[in-house]
Amino acid sequence: MPDGNIKVGIGVDLGGTSIKYALGTNSGEIIKEDHRPSQAHVEIAKILDNLGDAINQMKEFARLNGYDPIAVGMGTPGSVEIERGYLMGSTPNFRYWRDVYVADELRERVDLPVFVDNDANLMALGEAKFGSGVGYQNIICVTIGTGVGGGIIINGELYRGAYCAGAELGHSTIVANGLTCNCGGDGCLEVYASATAMIRNYKNLCIEKNVILDRKTIDVKYIFERYKKNNDQLAMISIEQCAYYLGRGLASFINIFNPNIIIIGGGVAEAGDIYINKVKETTLHYAMDTPREKVKIVAASLGNKAGFLGALAYAFSRMDSTPN
Amino acid sequence: MPDGNIKVGIGVDLGGTSIKYALGTNSGEIIKEDHRPSQAHVEIAKILDNLGDAINQMKEFARLNGYDPIAVGMGTPGSVEIERGYLMGSTPNFRYWRDVYVADELRERVDLPVFVDNDANLMALGEAKFGSGVGYQNIICVTIGTGVGGGIIINGELYRGAYCAGAELGHSTIVANGLTCNCGGDGCLEVYASATAMIRNYKNLCIEKNVILDRKTIDVKYIFERYKKNNDQLAMISIEQCAYYLGRGLASFINIFNPNIIIIGGGVAEAGDIYINKVKETTLHYAMDTPREKVKIVAASLGNKAGFLGALAYAFSRMDSTPN
Repeated sequence: MPDGNIKVGIGVDLGGTSIKYALGTNSGEIIKEDHRPSQAHVEIAKILDNLGDAINQMKEFARLNGYDPIAVGMGTPGSVEIERGYLMGSTPNFRYWRDVYVADELRERVDLPVFVDNDANLMALGEAKFGSGVGYQNIICVTIGTGVGGGIIINGELYRGAYCAGAELGHSTIVANGLTCNCGGDGCLEVYASATAMIRNYKNLCIEKNVILDRKTIDVKYIFERYKKNNDQLAMISIEQCAYYLGRGLASFINIFNPNIIIIGGGVAEAGDIYINKVKETTLHYAMDTPREKVKIVAASLGNKAGFLGALAYAFSRMDSTPN
Repeated sequence: MPDGNIKVGIGVDLGGTSIKYALGTNSGEIIKEDHRPSQAHVEIAKILDNLGDAINQMKEFARLNGYDPIAVGMGTPGSVEIERGYLMGSTPNFRYWRDVYVADELRERVDLPVFVDNDANLMALGEAKFGSGVGYQNIICVTIGTGVGGGIIINGELYRGAYCAGAELGHSTIVANGLTCNCGGDGCLEVYASATAMIRNYKNLCIEKNVILDRKTIDVKYIFERYKKNNDQLAMISIEQCAYYLGRGLASFINIFNPNIIIIGGGVAEAGDIYINKVKETTLHYAMDTPREKVKIVAASLGNKAGFLGALAYAFSRMDSTPN
């Protein structure tokens, strides 16, 4: 057992479905991890209590096992003013989770310094520090799930914008006057390239072709299985449509950012090479000659651990720059 | 007359029609300026000779008038590898101007240090240092002319991308599967929001409505005049269409960058408030709540001097960081 001098952190990833959290070191070594339902529908205080409880569980484990827990990092959906760890405004998948001084509230519950940032930012940081982005300075990270999240690493650091409200890559317009988006606009990348879009496409195609599905709940995993095992052409078309639009978006990001690497994460990306290769093909076809020349386009490598690993890295980086 | 100890620089802006150039100080004070045709159709050596001649004209003037010319900054269309001042690949409006070691070639002709960057980058830098962007750290600059150029200032510095090929804001897709663009793709912001687009829209509308124009050459100035003086509805529609699409693009840039300010330059922007206000309206309508909250959207204030003023600022900044 360690002698209590090994400094560890607690990384927390608050998602619409679950809270994933872990105890780990500055170099990204995970000592213990766990998850629990995020209860996205409950009131703010209960979400905070649930988060506090998860963090205290890890803190307790750390102390009992000879580690010294020094800080907590946490990612949440929504725009976060990072100096105060303040969630500005609302976030679509949580009913009451808005305008919360998350860091202050959690600090009271766990008696540790708490640093909060946007979840997609921390996923990008996780991949940059410990995953597919290691060794690169300019990274664009997109996370394909219910929505399309984005993270921007410039000169090795997260770029958040003037007031921490940037990197909303899923809300780039790619089809002006197109489908309505949750953000209030229309034609956003998210409406065409998210998991939600893939499921919508598939369902619509099935209705159109009078195909009767053997289940009520369709998810991305099912669509990929249908394509791989049953050679389902409608599944293939819906995958291809989403891959195509993501490629169109990524081509724009190449022209805008000329990054070293683009990392694609989230549930859809985990479906494997079929999807990534289709995205890559469209991206490289539409990006301009010079910026596309040396760009790498790869799948994320940390899976659903990217969020809490990024949160962990963020907590340690803030401790390094915060005078105690 | 100064005593020869006042250090000055020469800023050059190579455009498709003309070369604009000036002698000036580190604080952006212009001592003398001039312009000449850029002869975009001639071979590389002749363009370089013409540029060298323009620079030497300013150098000579400086010496005769008691100034000490220490460096040259220059903006050119195309992607520029800034360390060596190398134009990578081609640029659409110059027939032969491609793969040129611009800085080296000019240094031989003018016997001064020469620093070269992309023209839209230097326009953005000019506005950031001496124009509408003074005092802001995160700036998006778009230049509406034959195409749509872009410049990105992050934390007070130009962001060029991993290999100096980024900031191509005009080549963000806003209408996937839309009109063909010169870049080889389709649906780019440039095809919908440039001066070229406005002229195309106006001509098409005139044909459609059987309106016979009183001249063969239509430019943006003419369209704005027709709208202001003659209350020409077709002129208004074509202005509104371009303003709308620019607004859609800028809304995306707000979601992506969360900048302090967006600066709109180029010939179209100079037409005045009518246009800027229409752009602003669409931008703020489509941008997300949090990042749009504090953003300013303004016209550029340096007109066609932004390019050479930015080049001047760039030359001085490189001299400061280059050991002699």
